[in-house]
Amino acid sequence: MRFARLAADHRDIVFRCCVDSRTHVDTLAEACQAHDVAIGVVAEIEVGQRRCGVPPQDAVDLVRYVRDRGLRFDGIQCYQGLNQHIRSYRERGDAVMRVVEIARAVRSAIEAAGIQCQLVTGGGTGTFEFEAGSGVFTEVQPGSYLFLDVDYAKNMDANETLDRRFVNSLFVMTTVISVDADRRWAVVDAGTKAVSLDSGPPTIDSPDAADLSYRSGGDEHGIIYGTVGQLPDAIEIGSVLRLVPGHCDPTVNLYDEFLVVDDDDNVLETYAIAARGPGR
Amino acid sequence: MRFARLAADHRDIVFRCCVDSRTHVDTLAEACQAHDVAIGVVAEIEVGQRRCGVPPQDAVDLVRYVRDRGLRFDGIQCYQGLNQHIRSYRERGDAVMRVVEIARAVRSAIEAAGIQCQLVTGGGTGTFEFEAGSGVFTEVQPGSYLFLDVDYAKNMDANETLDRRFVNSLFVMTTVISVDADRRWAVVDAGTKAVSLDSGPPTIDSPDAADLSYRSGGDEHGIIYGTVGQLPDAIEIGSVLRLVPGHCDPTVNLYDEFLVVDDDDNVLETYAIAARGPGR
Repeated sequence: MRFARLAADHRDIVFRCCVDSRTHVDTLAEACQAHDVAIGVVAEIEVGQRRCGVPPQDAVDLVRYVRDRGLRFDGIQCYQGLNQHIRSYRERGDAVMRVVEIARAVRSAIEAAGIQCQLVTGGGTGTFEFEAGSGVFTEVQPGSYLFLDVDYAKNMDANETLDRRFVNSLFVMTTVISVDADRRWAVVDAGTKAVSLDSGPPTIDSPDAADLSYRSGGDEHGIIYGTVGQLPDAIEIGSVLRLVPGHCDPTVNLYDEFLVVDDDDNVLETYAIAARGPGR
Repeated sequence: MRFARLAADHRDIVFRCCVDSRTHVDTLAEACQAHDVAIGVVAEIEVGQRRCGVPPQDAVDLVRYVRDRGLRFDGIQCYQGLNQHIRSYRERGDAVMRVVEIARAVRSAIEAAGIQCQLVTGGGTGTFEFEAGSGVFTEVQPGSYLFLDVDYAKNMDANETLDRRFVNSLFVMTTVISVDADRRWAVVDAGTKAVSLDSGPPTIDSPDAADLSYRSGGDEHGIIYGTVGQLPDAIEIGSVLRLVPGHCDPTVNLYDEFLVVDDDDNVLETYAIAARGPGR
């Protein structure tokens, strides 16, 4: 109902909603009727993610039901998240092609039922070029490329060497607050509350920091080790390090605002992170 | 300097600060002088955490330096985080006793230097009873007991059975948004952005949910599996489940407010989470 109210308040914008069950369609139909709005329906197809999505063989039935309930059917969503992180270019492309074939078959079945399937959407920063070049997908959904993160930077390009088309632009600034007496490690003020660890630890992007690595030190602490045994001289209490988050989405989610800086770290602009938090 | 300004604005409150280096002491001395305030100094001792802390044998030197710089020395902090999560009561107690012996020796050395050591602080929800009963610690720092979490609920009590003195009081409410066609799994709207996974997944606390388990489905999704193969009938699109977070601190950190509810889930009060976010 909130979504329908939003659509009613902004009638100049196209709203669409993914569905994978008749329950969704019923709820959406009631909400659209109550607010006298049209929300385009996109049928989400189960293409291997095992998360949301109607089984491909049940797609036509669901699409028919969408139209029976008087809703506008716009197309299908075929997203496979795990494919984004397959390191090898060839293996990643092969995995996407399996999704493309399912999408093609579902679209054909819908069209064979006399229903137009305008939209085939999916893909992300790791795979968008495969979906975009497939001749089947009409829309791709990359987003992480803007910031990149440690994890996406491990993917390979067409030469099976590290993909360097996008560079990291998201950093967490952290300050050294303690140094071990024998200079084996330093403690920084960025822990689990400051940088997401679910796709591995951040790397350190600082001129004197090539041989530094980060390990979790708990909610408020990170531990910086020198990979050659001793910390470089530049690391001392008060030193500021730039961390490259292992995973950008849940890291951004922790902050109220972005600081946009120039090459000298002068703050040019501040953007509020309106959608931060649990996201419901 | 921010800390000294805070102390200057609230002169009726006792402020203390942990230090583990002369750099900290110098910074604190300058800040106290600039704002004409007294901040009590607590020397943090390295007792096995390998995070912050001066080595025990260097503690007296640091304490002398605190007094040389005109600051008030209040005592020592001896915190060992990993001890909190040792499952066996006996092994946990033994680990704390090693910390107690270090604390006792450091306090004796400080007193032998003619300096009073009023405060010996440390411990947490997993170990507070050992520190409190040690005859050495004068303060304990439990906090998680208020909410508990999946992880702390795995600790054993003096009978080496699950410690049930504290119960879970922190829950994340989540809604089922999709159910697999064969009812093998359901998808809920709580992912990495809604519940911390760093100490393992949440458990599900719902009357019909004894045989359900949670797996991560990414930033916005959680996947609920039935441990007996098929989901119970009560799980359908729109069902609301209560998750018990694996780790309360970084979960609380994601939210702007607590909703305090009664047994019927009526909201009695709302508390702002003022300190949420990266915490600097």
